[in-house]
Amino acid sequence: MIIVLKQNAPKHDVEKLMSMLSAYDIKVNAITGAEKEILGLVGDTTKIDIEAIQAQHAVDEVKRVQEPYKNANRKMHPENTVIDVEGVQVGGKKLTVIAGPCSVENEAQMIETATAVKASGAAMLRGGAFKPRTSPYAFQGLHGEGIRLLLEAKKATGLPIVTEIMSAADLDLFADVDVIQVGARNMQNFELLKELGKTDKPILLKRGLANTIEELLMSAEYILAGGNTKVILCERGIRTFETMTRNTLDISAIPLLKKKSHLPVIVDPSHAAGISALVEPLSFAAVAAGADGLIIEVHNNPAVALCDGAQSLNPVQFDDVMKKISGLAEYMGR
Amino acid sequence: MIIVLKQNAPKHDVEKLMSMLSAYDIKVNAITGAEKEILGLVGDTTKIDIEAIQAQHAVDEVKRVQEPYKNANRKMHPENTVIDVEGVQVGGKKLTVIAGPCSVENEAQMIETATAVKASGAAMLRGGAFKPRTSPYAFQGLHGEGIRLLLEAKKATGLPIVTEIMSAADLDLFADVDVIQVGARNMQNFELLKELGKTDKPILLKRGLANTIEELLMSAEYILAGGNTKVILCERGIRTFETMTRNTLDISAIPLLKKKSHLPVIVDPSHAAGISALVEPLSFAAVAAGADGLIIEVHNNPAVALCDGAQSLNPVQFDDVMKKISGLAEYMGR
Amino acid sequence: MIIVLKQNAPKHDVEKLMSMLSAYDIKVNAITGAEKEILGLVGDTTKIDIEAIQAQHAVDEVKRVQEPYKNANRKMHPENTVIDVEGVQVGGKKLTVIAGPCSVENEAQMIETATAVKASGAAMLRGGAFKPRTSPYAFQGLHGEGIRLLLEAKKATGLPIVTEIMSAADLDLFADVDVIQVGARNMQNFELLKELGKTDKPILLKRGLANTIEELLMSAEYILAGGNTKVILCERGIRTFETMTRNTLDISAIPLLKKKSHLPVIVDPSHAAGISALVEPLSFAAVAAGADGLIIEVHNNPAVALCDGAQSLNPVQFDDVMKKISGLAEYMGR
Amino acid sequence: MIIVLKQNAPKHDVEKLMSMLSAYDIKVNAITGAEKEILGLVGDTTKIDIEAIQAQHAVDEVKRVQEPYKNANRKMHPENTVIDVEGVQVGGKKLTVIAGPCSVENEAQMIETATAVKASGAAMLRGGAFKPRTSPYAFQGLHGEGIRLLLEAKKATGLPIVTEIMSAADLDLFADVDVIQVGARNMQNFELLKELGKTDKPILLKRGLANTIEELLMSAEYILAGGNTKVILCERGIRTFETMTRNTLDISAIPLLKKKSHLPVIVDPSHAAGISALVEPLSFAAVAAGADGLIIEVHNNPAVALCDGAQSLNPVQFDDVMKKISGLAEYMGR
Repeated sequence: MIIVLKQNAPKHDVEKLMSMLSAYDIKVNAITGAEKEILGLVGDTTKIDIEAIQAQHAVDEVKRVQEPYKNANRKMHPENTVIDVEGVQVGGKKLTVIAGPCSVENEAQMIETATAVKASGAAMLRGGAFKPRTSPYAFQGLHGEGIRLLLEAKKATGLPIVTEIMSAADLDLFADVDVIQVGARNMQNFELLKELGKTDKPILLKRGLANTIEELLMSAEYILAGGNTKVILCERGIRTFETMTRNTLDISAIPLLKKKSHLPVIVDPSHAAGISALVEPLSFAAVAAGADGLIIEVHNNPAVALCDGAQSLNPVQFDDVMKKISGLAEYMGR
Repeated sequence: MIIVLKQNAPKHDVEKLMSMLSAYDIKVNAITGAEKEILGLVGDTTKIDIEAIQAQHAVDEVKRVQEPYKNANRKMHPENTVIDVEGVQVGGKKLTVIAGPCSVENEAQMIETATAVKASGAAMLRGGAFKPRTSPYAFQGLHGEGIRLLLEAKKATGLPIVTEIMSAADLDLFADVDVIQVGARNMQNFELLKELGKTDKPILLKRGLANTIEELLMSAEYILAGGNTKVILCERGIRTFETMTRNTLDISAIPLLKKKSHLPVIVDPSHAAGISALVEPLSFAAVAAGADGLIIEVHNNPAVALCDGAQSLNPVQFDDVMKKISGLAEYMGR
Repeated sequence: MIIVLKQNAPKHDVEKLMSMLSAYDIKVNAITGAEKEILGLVGDTTKIDIEAIQAQHAVDEVKRVQEPYKNANRKMHPENTVIDVEGVQVGGKKLTVIAGPCSVENEAQMIETATAVKASGAAMLRGGAFKPRTSPYAFQGLHGEGIRLLLEAKKATGLPIVTEIMSAADLDLFADVDVIQVGARNMQNFELLKELGKTDKPILLKRGLANTIEELLMSAEYILAGGNTKVILCERGIRTFETMTRNTLDISAIPLLKKKSHLPVIVDPSHAAGISALVEPLSFAAVAAGADGLIIEVHNNPAVALCDGAQSLNPVQFDDVMKKISGLAEYMGR
Repeated sequence: MIIVLKQNAPKHDVEKLMSMLSAYDIKVNAITGAEKEILGLVGDTTKIDIEAIQAQHAVDEVKRVQEPYKNANRKMHPENTVIDVEGVQVGGKKLTVIAGPCSVENEAQMIETATAVKASGAAMLRGGAFKPRTSPYAFQGLHGEGIRLLLEAKKATGLPIVTEIMSAADLDLFADVDVIQVGARNMQNFELLKELGKTDKPILLKRGLANTIEELLMSAEYILAGGNTKVILCERGIRTFETMTRNTLDISAIPLLKKKSHLPVIVDPSHAAGISALVEPLSFAAVAAGADGLIIEVHNNPAVALCDGAQSLNPVQFDDVMKKISGLAEYMGR
């Protein structure tokens, strides 16, 4: 950590800062510049509260040198983390494709879609039982009944299921769910993250619309710090000024997350663009950039979907995309 | 609602769309253009699921004409909503200033700060008992004990208290809290909003870092739709590419929210900038632009604050700012 | 074009609008809604000034239905435009890779780099003679002498050259340049675009940091409208809140530009990320998403480069990346 | 300047870096941390090319401590710069209001508007003769004839005139113009800035849509470094995800620019919002936050304006706003 002092900071302010720093198990080295004085802090600085330092009268700026995340850091865990979900590996050599509808609507829809995506090569089934909707008047999901239908589809196809949680109060309903998803809007719902850190379920953590790559890793750190080591990171687009797509897929996040962290990284091309025609090229880009998996919206009949139909593929389109993705994945050595 | 059809959409796709629209209590008017056909939907379109329309094969684009929020809409409620908090009016003629530390730390800090801000003219006391922190290793707040200390400070000064909730599971602890705050990171924690809609507590709803003005009003709508009419909107800065400030205060949001909605609008200049020296000019700007109130961070000793000290004023600075703000508010007719 | 009228707009304001619209060769169809009246304009609306309409008292909102660009529109030109640069095809079946240093520094550097990138398979040589630098104190390029050195390198290797123009006043110096580049900061330097529209040189037009995909196409339209049909579009990252990369590569822009326009689309992975280690994964992603080419920074000795060394590959790294890219391009059928 | 070395950087890479640094007139101090080694550079670091350092193999990160601008820096020039434009002071005690139409259209429009804004208290007249338009098919301005009409209006009213330049090639036409405006799209048109630096005309420099406050100051530095000390900075909104306003006025930029620099700072509330109803509240906010002036669009008949009518005030509205602004300015001590 580097502390830049204010030009001509009064002596007693600097002394106050120094006495504050002396409480930590670190060494402080000073460099006196032409204009400003700089302090370099040596030792384990992850426990230092950067904001408390910033508030000191003598301080102009504080800059971290070490990453603020530990358990999610590849330096602490050089090997890739591979997460086993009922026999399906996430983060291993093989690309993992999760597919299914935006929301669970009824049994026929789920069984039909699950059967189709399995036939096309999907490894897991997704489907929303609790739906975060901007409008309180929009369909909010089937809740417990939705999870029951997912489990029916699992029974019928053998596919492990992935579904989103919106409140820790509902955790009991997720007892048989294979992967619990945390949506973009809840990426910094820290109370929920803490509760999930106490479970041993794999967690699919989506990046928030306005969250940095470092903040995504810090949210993963919340879960990991609680003892749950099974976190799957998901890039799903960030909010920018561009309006032609719903969000802007940050393709650079894939290699950066793989470099900074040992956790598996998957990509959601459906939510990133919000346009079904972009699912194929964005999936290709994600696989080529090194993603460990994809989560794709597929609906047996997008035109009657209760949500996000505009970004859903139908089973025929999905089958076509899967064939191409599999070929590309194989070419890329996965 | 306007629906733009795809150029040369097949007849049966258009018929499917038409039969879908016939289920709603609306009239459909068609305009055949040179290139494209446009449908104009007449009637109450707030119940139409825009995404379901977008997913139709025949549809190129859908555009709303009516606002999607009802209860928050000034059209439905032309008069300003004035919320009474233990005798303090929010949204009335007088500017309301809420002040206090980022987080509740101990009794001396709270009593000292509360006494000071009251003497300077603050109408309510703020303080965080549950703290949303990016890092799991940072101070997370005193929780129940924090609320107890806030109530002590209320007893000592008579100031109503405002404090943030992070999970509906903690609602019982907020029984004696006067205003419950929903932080920026939870603006789209819809499950929490629904629970707060069932209470009769005033809710201070902060705009999310990446959320539009319309989304803020839709989140207010969640609370209002549940039956709780006491929502205070708060602009606190949005995330942009500019790095010199922590966030970018969207000053235009004030007149826009006042125009679109009848709910009170307050501004948080402390979090918007993250720099204590900007609290004064941003407070002035907010008052001049028509804000109904301000929420300002004040700590009896910012240099030892456990969080956000860099943006906190000390009581002397706050007193100075309050004098100037009061003068300006009076000049502006408040 | 759709015009939404203000609720209860006075009759004479509506009449004024109608008389204004009557000047255009279009038909106006009205739909009277519950709350608002909507006008649908039928005919060639590209000549209507949308801002003049917006300024009418009676008007609440105006929405385009047709794209505002014509010559750049794929509808007007369904076939891909293939641009021939001294025998090198851009936009054809084969992927085109342009490589070279950020700035031209001296003869040895240019000859050495040009020879190396040619050996690795690059089809054109890039190098900046005029450098847009944020600071007036940074190296600004060798100007005419830089172009001379590029031409030397062309003579030595046969590679066509690509270099950036910053002012129309310098056009004479570009007489022997094969492709003229317009940098991101000049994408909306309309006076420059108009001058380039009068030439018959291929123009490599980079997307501005804060410009939408539609604005990029409108800037291309400036060149095309002047009579120059040889425009190559280049996605090079947009400015967002993420700070880990210099810019955020908008990978979705590739399939969208290819769908909306017939012009070739290339990607600059070096400027997009600003990190040499990301050049490989971003190049892969671009090729997989359908880009027609890449423009990559290569310096014979990045550690002594006068600009952007942090994002440059050295010849050995470039050779490695080229081998992989060629394989992937071939796999993708190019 | 601080250089963070890569963990375990090879000795010869570090030596190379050190020998490179030895070329500058600075002292290098090293701090050996637990994980990383840090170098602190002491002396005048403004001449060091930060990108050349970043490209060194041994370097992980480089951070500036000193601001990269000199002439624009308040440290070098503690007093406010006051610019005299034909007797009108910009940056002095009094608030300066510039008003006039988006574009110059004809003599009647200019004389009428100029007379009106003068009567309401405007100190200068604005009007565009060269118009940067997104579409090549939109009205591009009257060019030389437009400047002639501005000069007519100046003769009739005595108001100094402000008009935008789009290319250095047109400089001769600006011989009698009082203030030359550089628009947002040209803020980083460095060749134009250099040419303007050679003149002695006051320059009104608008912030680019995607440019940081520091970049605005660096563009001012281009002009100042050329010898022209008369630069007026203008905040006019930045591009964000919010779509309800055309841009987002960055109100914090005002106090920050005033703190970092000695140059006058004005605000353009018309372009910031793109909505005439927001001109009043945003003007109030700007004045309250400390702006030295405002530039407001006024058209004698906005409904027939050839551009930007939706954001223009008519003379009656402007007169009303001016009365309120004058009162507020006086209250603020200006």
